[in-house]
Amino acid sequence: MMTDQIDTENRAIGAASPALFATLAPLGRRVSFPPDIPFQAAAARGKTYNGTIGQITDGAGSPLPLEPMAAAVAGLEPRDSDRFFLYSPVDGLPELRQRWREWQRRSVSPEAPSTLPLVTVGLTHGLSVVADLFGGVGRKLVVPAPFWGNYRQTFAVRTGAEILSAPAYLDGRYNCRVIPEALAGVAPGEPAVAIVNLPSNPGGYAVTDSERAELIAGLLEEADRRPLVVICDDAYAGLVYEPDVSVRSLFWDLSGAHEQLVPIKVDGATKELSFFGGRVGFITFPFDPESDVAQALESKVKCLTRSALGSPVAASQMIVLQALRDERIEERVEQVRRVLEKRYRTLRKALEEVAREAPELLRPLPFNAGCFALLELAESLDADAVRRHLLEDHDTGLVSIGSSHLRIAFCSVKRAALPELVQRVTRAAREMAVAAKG
Amino acid sequence: MMTDQIDTENRAIGAASPALFATLAPLGRRVSFPPDIPFQAAAARGKTYNGTIGQITDGAGSPLPLEPMAAAVAGLEPRDSDRFFLYSPVDGLPELRQRWREWQRRSVSPEAPSTLPLVTVGLTHGLSVVADLFGGVGRKLVVPAPFWGNYRQTFAVRTGAEILSAPAYLDGRYNCRVIPEALAGVAPGEPAVAIVNLPSNPGGYAVTDSERAELIAGLLEEADRRPLVVICDDAYAGLVYEPDVSVRSLFWDLSGAHEQLVPIKVDGATKELSFFGGRVGFITFPFDPESDVAQALESKVKCLTRSALGSPVAASQMIVLQALRDERIEERVEQVRRVLEKRYRTLRKALEEVAREAPELLRPLPFNAGCFALLELAESLDADAVRRHLLEDHDTGLVSIGSSHLRIAFCSVKRAALPELVQRVTRAAREMAVAAKG
Repeated sequence: MMTDQIDTENRAIGAASPALFATLAPLGRRVSFPPDIPFQAAAARGKTYNGTIGQITDGAGSPLPLEPMAAAVAGLEPRDSDRFFLYSPVDGLPELRQRWREWQRRSVSPEAPSTLPLVTVGLTHGLSVVADLFGGVGRKLVVPAPFWGNYRQTFAVRTGAEILSAPAYLDGRYNCRVIPEALAGVAPGEPAVAIVNLPSNPGGYAVTDSERAELIAGLLEEADRRPLVVICDDAYAGLVYEPDVSVRSLFWDLSGAHEQLVPIKVDGATKELSFFGGRVGFITFPFDPESDVAQALESKVKCLTRSALGSPVAASQMIVLQALRDERIEERVEQVRRVLEKRYRTLRKALEEVAREAPELLRPLPFNAGCFALLELAESLDADAVRRHLLEDHDTGLVSIGSSHLRIAFCSVKRAALPELVQRVTRAAREMAVAAKG
Repeated sequence: MMTDQIDTENRAIGAASPALFATLAPLGRRVSFPPDIPFQAAAARGKTYNGTIGQITDGAGSPLPLEPMAAAVAGLEPRDSDRFFLYSPVDGLPELRQRWREWQRRSVSPEAPSTLPLVTVGLTHGLSVVADLFGGVGRKLVVPAPFWGNYRQTFAVRTGAEILSAPAYLDGRYNCRVIPEALAGVAPGEPAVAIVNLPSNPGGYAVTDSERAELIAGLLEEADRRPLVVICDDAYAGLVYEPDVSVRSLFWDLSGAHEQLVPIKVDGATKELSFFGGRVGFITFPFDPESDVAQALESKVKCLTRSALGSPVAASQMIVLQALRDERIEERVEQVRRVLEKRYRTLRKALEEVAREAPELLRPLPFNAGCFALLELAESLDADAVRRHLLEDHDTGLVSIGSSHLRIAFCSVKRAALPELVQRVTRAAREMAVAAKG
């Protein structure tokens, strides 16, 4: 029975997109949501006598929370508080999925297909589910460098995928051909996966409108050569600070643009709604919600969520819903963006001065978005040594990326402190350079 | 550098327990917490200028939550509310780990070693981490049958482990030799993993004190033959209803009992604190918190959590802390247990009547604990067909387990409704039996 279901789902995926099926990993091919407890519990919803789910309730669908826990969320309506304490469906709370879809599709054409987002436990879990679906031993995964180190764990260490990379910046500019360049040595026809993370971590960069066109052209060319799944890691969606940069996810540009190219949108409330502790993320595919392929992919994602986590976090989903139901949501999100934009302007100015004064020590890479700025250090300097020196002698914490980059998370530093932070980085770099020569 | 770290950790595990190292899966051997952003952020804690973490704050360590979300948790102290919205450490909030350890160790001898519990995203995630560590292609995993179907997804579908089973009940009694029986055909010396889930799902059974001694003796014998990791799935800890059944986890009995046997405790707030929507679980190893082996295992678990989920849910952890800090916590948990005990007595009585009146149709298996009762149906009946018939014609939802068992979740049914629910099951089974003959 499970075998039939798996075959049907795999066929639905292959029928809608041979490229997507060609890219499915062995684990991705064998997962399918089983006709197990959550499936049977869903079938029993609304029955007078319902003894399906192993959660402790009053017998009429309300939880029996311990008093101090209930008191903490006294700000929720009783019905919402109930849902806070009880299991979420494996694919997430229906209202949240619907509202997040609307949130994603603000100013997107109504014709653009997209599934109802599947809820994950934060954005990283979304990436991990996609890695389980499309990674696997030997699968080529392209990530522009420098990149967020956890991609390595999620795709390479866990599934055995092989990371290929090319520089995200060339001559102080974003490299729009980074993905075709990284795949140049891979035999045509071999399926591949690429991650596009814009605004980027650690770069703090989003493409300008003209770069966007160039980036898309390169991806479409690459799709002439092979089945290509493009993961749009939209963690920092909305956080852009320059007039020539659009907030639109690349997902909408790539959706339906080429038969051999399938974009997958991975996003979340973590940064978009400033809820880091909640772990609410989403996976969205470029298909109509009711299509067979959407249902098949949903079944696979549910199996992966169920097997690794049981179900996503109902508590956090209820908190996110409070924000999404609020009429003033866009305004509130804009307030947070404005706080970051001010820090961005201050940091940018401080870094431009350093670039003028000490170009031999460090070079700020272009940044215009998100939460970070990235500094490229002189070749004689080791980024982790500078990081440790900053910690020990300058009361300053930054993150080293590889051997030659330092990342400044301006999202967690007061605006007024940024110039002094930059001074300290410059000083520390100079001291290390002198010590290296001495 | 990572290679050195991995080697050091694997050696620490091998030195403390060759059996545990022998049972480590390939993925378990290659994971180790990388010196990546969370590692570097931990090093920078307390610095005046801290630009390490990509979470949006006011620059002084407090979050910038959207107003409707903050309002929902107005019942939290400001400092707790801050932590609700910000990232948790990958291993969990230190206060929660400490308090859960105290909670686990009530009436446990102070000498019994146990690590500081590692926080997971619900109990299933704890199982999944253990599956990643000790599962893998071809690894034999013993689960007494009938069992919770999700073990299959977590261990077999995801990691390629091979499930072996033997009957959990023989002649209407719990089968204390179930694990050695299931492993009888496996070559001596081959490492294996066993799951012990007491109180059980779907059985609703916990061993009596005399059965416990027999079960332990069988496990120790098996450990004479092979390295054996025993996963104590303590989801339903504390929910026992008979005087001859102890609440003590088997973990404490097995810890240190045999050189070749390593118990791992997987538990959580889901059922123990009645917080299903929160996804707060824990993994605990039988070693001193500061030992090298504890540190090595912690590094591996953190790598698995980081790569699949980023970090556990801070929001839910803060809610769980509200309960654990409460002086009346034991009393409050006892209140929930008493609600379930009353339902248990009512259901037990109703099932005893059925057993007398319709022994040819269904037989209740022994139950005395947890959230469930399990019915074994007559051979002529198909459990899933009876389930569907109950749904369609009797307004009643239950879960079918395999082809011959139905599970009643009395934890989610009102006490007063249980006799009628049992009547309906009996009626449905009778109708199906008549139809089968007809």
